[in-house]
Amino acid sequence: MRLSRYFLPVLKETPADAQIASHRLMLRAGMIKQASAGIYSWLPLGYRVLRNIEAIVHEEQQRAGHIPMLMPTLQSAELWRESGRYDAYGPEMLRIRDRHDRDMLYGPTNEELITDIFRSHVSSYRELPLTLYHIQWKFRDEIRPRFGVMRGREFYMKDGYNFDIDRAAAIHAYNRHFVSYLRTYERMGLQAIPMRAESGPIGGDDTHEFLVLADTGESEVFYDAAVTEIRMGDRDIDYDSRADCQAVVDEYTALYARTDDTHDAGVFAEVPEDRRRHGRGIEVGQIFYFGTKYSEPMGAMVSDPEGNRVPVHMGSHGIGVSRLVGAIIEASHDERGIIWPEGVTPFHCGIVNLRQGDAATDAACEALYAALAAKGLDPLYDDTEDRAGAKFATMDLIGLPWRITVGPRGLAQGKVEVTSRRTGESEEMSPEAAADRIGAIYGV
Amino acid sequence: MRLSRYFLPVLKETPADAQIASHRLMLRAGMIKQASAGIYSWLPLGYRVLRNIEAIVHEEQQRAGHIPMLMPTLQSAELWRESGRYDAYGPEMLRIRDRHDRDMLYGPTNEELITDIFRSHVSSYRELPLTLYHIQWKFRDEIRPRFGVMRGREFYMKDGYNFDIDRAAAIHAYNRHFVSYLRTYERMGLQAIPMRAESGPIGGDDTHEFLVLADTGESEVFYDAAVTEIRMGDRDIDYDSRADCQAVVDEYTALYARTDDTHDAGVFAEVPEDRRRHGRGIEVGQIFYFGTKYSEPMGAMVSDPEGNRVPVHMGSHGIGVSRLVGAIIEASHDERGIIWPEGVTPFHCGIVNLRQGDAATDAACEALYAALAAKGLDPLYDDTEDRAGAKFATMDLIGLPWRITVGPRGLAQGKVEVTSRRTGESEEMSPEAAADRIGAIYGV
Repeated sequence: MRLSRYFLPVLKETPADAQIASHRLMLRAGMIKQASAGIYSWLPLGYRVLRNIEAIVHEEQQRAGHIPMLMPTLQSAELWRESGRYDAYGPEMLRIRDRHDRDMLYGPTNEELITDIFRSHVSSYRELPLTLYHIQWKFRDEIRPRFGVMRGREFYMKDGYNFDIDRAAAIHAYNRHFVSYLRTYERMGLQAIPMRAESGPIGGDDTHEFLVLADTGESEVFYDAAVTEIRMGDRDIDYDSRADCQAVVDEYTALYARTDDTHDAGVFAEVPEDRRRHGRGIEVGQIFYFGTKYSEPMGAMVSDPEGNRVPVHMGSHGIGVSRLVGAIIEASHDERGIIWPEGVTPFHCGIVNLRQGDAATDAACEALYAALAAKGLDPLYDDTEDRAGAKFATMDLIGLPWRITVGPRGLAQGKVEVTSRRTGESEEMSPEAAADRIGAIYGV
Repeated sequence: MRLSRYFLPVLKETPADAQIASHRLMLRAGMIKQASAGIYSWLPLGYRVLRNIEAIVHEEQQRAGHIPMLMPTLQSAELWRESGRYDAYGPEMLRIRDRHDRDMLYGPTNEELITDIFRSHVSSYRELPLTLYHIQWKFRDEIRPRFGVMRGREFYMKDGYNFDIDRAAAIHAYNRHFVSYLRTYERMGLQAIPMRAESGPIGGDDTHEFLVLADTGESEVFYDAAVTEIRMGDRDIDYDSRADCQAVVDEYTALYARTDDTHDAGVFAEVPEDRRRHGRGIEVGQIFYFGTKYSEPMGAMVSDPEGNRVPVHMGSHGIGVSRLVGAIIEASHDERGIIWPEGVTPFHCGIVNLRQGDAATDAACEALYAALAAKGLDPLYDDTEDRAGAKFATMDLIGLPWRITVGPRGLAQGKVEVTSRRTGESEEMSPEAAADRIGAIYGV
């Protein structure tokens, strides 16, 4: 993309009402614009990151064998009356009346709707196991929306639902989600620690939250530092293998990691003192096993191998897709701006032309742009006539992990400069070598 | 995808309340399930088609230089009061009150919101031309929703907005959309004819609708048969060239093609009699140039080269993404089911195993599945134990354009059968040749 043809409205001033780094930086980098309280438009740069995160979530869910579909944003109140949650849910549920005075609501979650789909179409254990998920906009009428997309009212979330014949099968589904979530966050350059949590309005006994450590996190967390040393890496996991998935869950959950809701000072005291950590975290996902909580009242039954009608065992599993954009920034920024992990960066690298209008410099930039595009990469080429300082400041602010700087002096030696946003380190090399270097970073 | 692990709830009976073919077939093929009146869940098969259509729309918009972003579903009433449309819009607008009693609405369109974004960030002609678009769920509270996704209440739509310094530049943007829409529909296997139309509540003088010919269409259309002979094909169009785009528009608009709203019997009579056609059509897109209708009241001004503040010239341009799923089916089905064009098919082909459980047949199917996957294709392998007749009926119903049938008798001769859903013609060949044949159809 050529910057001269893009829409990147960066702000010079820091917005006064933004209290945390991710909110400030998303506004300054031209990623979002508030449309109304807690509701945001995703400007082109922000939209790119949102889509990249969404794509990773899709890939990892499908790798785990979960099936994508899409439920609508508005739901009828009827199903929620069946489950008993219509009255139980508080004022955070946005209730709506349509022109025929029918009660509707903007879905904050989808247990009822998915259970209705299931009971309409599935009647035998032979059709199980089944895990369906979708990524859709949801609404939660927060009384005081704040922190930008971290605690907005309209938010984008992946929610998935497993249907299994018994508790053991449902726990395997729970574990598959546990593993796939760890992979998902790692691909985004995040370390999210699974912590034993409380279930809240979804219900159920077994639940883990995934938290990214950050001083601005809303949750107080207590953990054994050893849990931060574990990596999924490129382990070969067979998602059909109960043992494979259980082993990962056991490895993580053997170590103490809890939010303040479930924190037990006595148990925590058994962690070796030098590994005891106390801090704050941002919740970026949660998984639940809740058994027959919805299938019983809503009649989601299947016949088992003996011909008995039994309620299915269910769980639900969420990843906050729009919230992750903020969480990644909270975990990865400095005083100059955002530092995108390669897995989610909106552009693979920036190209800064130090003398736009100089024929040789322009030609070198164009050749580099074409060479990167030929590798399937998407660079952002700053082809504007801004001065070098402004170009560098914008690149630092928007946080592309790599920058290639092209100027007449370097070109006279046949060199351009490749700079890491994270370390600030630069290296001179030929334009061809620069394209290959960036290609190698992205594995192309 | 293996059918035994998929969720494809096909219906044996024809749903009683579905009046048109696309609605019936989408329900029967397990593509959608009604969630409430005019609101649908997209089951896995339907979701795949929706995503394929969305991807084509994105690609063709970006090829034309238009920039993707995303606006929220809910909007504040304030901006609509500024434009004067809050009171002007009828009961089809879903009005909502949040917990603080603020007036909100579920966006039926986004002229106000995009104009607000523009005026907040753009102040000079140097930042023009600019076309932003998004694909987002919208709501229109139809009094009598019907025809499934063709006339639902919650619908998925691409809407794009151009901002230009003067009328001539804005007409070029209009023409870019005209050309990109033709390309978009052709890639979906559709012939959509641009017809002069009326502007309705969006406003403006210049507008074309794109209509797919179908007996079930809601619009009466009159056209010169010669317009149906034009194809975009793989013309090399430079979207920056006003002449290139204008030439395409001129070629199409030189021939009579109008909806009943703008039909002129006198002008139509000048079309040679043997080319005069009268029929029905389904609207799948509309483009508008409306000048300064929103920029003037909302103060979306830029400085021109002489330093004067002038209102920008705008247009808006929509493609009905969810509606297209229905429109494609209306245009392409037979008594046995859907016939997907290759450009949007949910799976590239089906593999029917005639004797599941027979070791040699299973192995041949697995090898074929792997060979197709290695080409980057996504086959649907019916590995269930259903009888052959039921498997064929399901494949015909869900409409995959190609089917490979694998059975012990053919395998004894080293052959499988490749069948076209459209023509019903079959050809026997080796499994390797079958994989290559399907690959060649999809250009891989």
